[in-house]
Amino acid sequence: MSRLIAAVLLCWLPWAEPALAAAPAPAAAPHPIAIAIHGGAGVMDRAKMTPEREAAYRAGLTAALHAGYAILESGGTSLDAVAAVVRTLEDDPLFNAGRGAVLDARGDAELDAAIMDGNGPRAGAVAAVRHVKNPIDLARLVMDKSPWVLLVGEGAEDFALEQGVVLVSADYFRTERRVQELHEVQQREHAAAAASALPKGTVGAVAVDRAGNLAAATSTGGLTNKHVGRVGDTPLIGAGTYANNESCAVSGTGTGEYFIRGVVAYDVCALVHYRHLPLQEAVNTVIHDKLQHAAANTGGLIAIDRDGNIVMDFNTSGMLRAARDLHGRETVAIFRDDK
Amino acid sequence: MSRLIAAVLLCWLPWAEPALAAAPAPAAAPHPIAIAIHGGAGVMDRAKMTPEREAAYRAGLTAALHAGYAILESGGTSLDAVAAVVRTLEDDPLFNAGRGAVLDARGDAELDAAIMDGNGPRAGAVAAVRHVKNPIDLARLVMDKSPWVLLVGEGAEDFALEQGVVLVSADYFRTERRVQELHEVQQREHAAAAASALPKGTVGAVAVDRAGNLAAATSTGGLTNKHVGRVGDTPLIGAGTYANNESCAVSGTGTGEYFIRGVVAYDVCALVHYRHLPLQEAVNTVIHDKLQHAAANTGGLIAIDRDGNIVMDFNTSGMLRAARDLHGRETVAIFRDDK
Repeated sequence: MSRLIAAVLLCWLPWAEPALAAAPAPAAAPHPIAIAIHGGAGVMDRAKMTPEREAAYRAGLTAALHAGYAILESGGTSLDAVAAVVRTLEDDPLFNAGRGAVLDARGDAELDAAIMDGNGPRAGAVAAVRHVKNPIDLARLVMDKSPWVLLVGEGAEDFALEQGVVLVSADYFRTERRVQELHEVQQREHAAAAASALPKGTVGAVAVDRAGNLAAATSTGGLTNKHVGRVGDTPLIGAGTYANNESCAVSGTGTGEYFIRGVVAYDVCALVHYRHLPLQEAVNTVIHDKLQHAAANTGGLIAIDRDGNIVMDFNTSGMLRAARDLHGRETVAIFRDDK
Repeated sequence: MSRLIAAVLLCWLPWAEPALAAAPAPAAAPHPIAIAIHGGAGVMDRAKMTPEREAAYRAGLTAALHAGYAILESGGTSLDAVAAVVRTLEDDPLFNAGRGAVLDARGDAELDAAIMDGNGPRAGAVAAVRHVKNPIDLARLVMDKSPWVLLVGEGAEDFALEQGVVLVSADYFRTERRVQELHEVQQREHAAAAASALPKGTVGAVAVDRAGNLAAATSTGGLTNKHVGRVGDTPLIGAGTYANNESCAVSGTGTGEYFIRGVVAYDVCALVHYRHLPLQEAVNTVIHDKLQHAAANTGGLIAIDRDGNIVMDFNTSGMLRAARDLHGRETVAIFRDDK
């Protein structure tokens, strides 16, 4: 149908060059590159944020951003770039993914991750894994080395072993800070929701590479004290992670259940593709109208399109985020009024 | 944003009554009711289908359809109706869900299910459960009794126990036919894909009730010889199951990975909502253009809107399906040229 429409448009617009109707990446001039990353959205109180912690978050975001941008700059793929960002954040105990994942009601980390290549599109995801150091790499293996998109639990860990991935002990994720947080939340019990002033959530990245291909990746430990087996939006294609060269790439962070019901990541791209909204307006509609209407403080997302437009928006008081745009301008921010 | 547009439209159209802009169900005249169900799509060869087997499929579909329609007719909710259909098909060993689920590479059934209430919308889902007789009922409990949308694996079974659900032995699902199929597929190994001439897939239902609310439900055992932990589109909101009173309700069946990457169920509703396509055209675009373009014989889906329009379409040679439309007309069909 879309090809039909494209063909009809070509008939109606005799001055239109065929290249305008074709999806593939341009060959001659290298496409401008750009990348955006996030480290979670949530209730963030500037008064409670120590200068040391703020500096640590900014340093973590900057390191991850540079890891991804270096790949794009040297002609690497957006897929490799977003994976590198997320892997870097998974290894940083400050962020709720990989090493720094929050703990579930049983006291274990249960990790979710997804990666999507806008060229195809192709996708891979894992959920509820407990012994995988870098879930984003396992998601990538599911995409590259299996006919599946989503593997969960022990089956996903069996697949990891089949692929030669070395599993880690559950103790790897039991960092002092997360054990402490779990105890606090479990003692407060019903006060769990508003919980701590620490930013939580998810880590993610979206990028466009020199070939004009989009990619998105997201990884998380989910929610402190979550039910064993609870899976949020992160590993669900279309909910927390989506990329398609036809429209955009999105990585979300927030209260996963709202993102699942709203099919949020795909919804942004559907507004761009079907309603022809500019990316900023599509994100605005989803974050500040639809999600905010469902419930306050639901979260945020980062999005990018093939023109290198970047949007980072949220309906919470802050979102850990950073970007390097197509002009090479770098931003690292936490609160709404940052930069 | 949508409320803003509605408000603007009201200003522009002074003759428009406020009721035109409001989403809630009409109160006075009861809304017309309608329901559609499926029992899986796939390669179906009329020559290989015995009269006995065809009669058994038709009887199973008819029984499930009547179970759902009776609820709608007596003023029950579309949510209860689609759950009743799916529960009936889960209990029928002919269909690949519940009792008749196909077996994974380990020889166990791993079951996925989702239910969505278009009024809200609200949703619940479970994946990779191995001891739950009726996964659709557990999905309903996740929606009604937890803050989560998706629970997987043993965590989902723990939740079942917390809710007083009695678990069944894995033997409950090891029916002679499915054990036989698994052995055949495992012996053929690389011929697994085209596999048997038996229809496989998923069961599902969509309905609109007298209050004008939409609902969708889907349940499956997935694919014979699938990797342990592989989750398909069925339990993923937006991929295999979606319902929203603003647009439509959809239940899919087919090769799950394509449905996940295409965010198929939500995509149909997005085409209806954002492009204002009639339901038939939206389904046609997704099934015969987008999915067919990704790969041949990917599957089918059933969809319904609040006006009671029903669409049942597929790009395979057949789909087990049945419906009762807003005029009370009943259809039960298997092959493309049925009725």
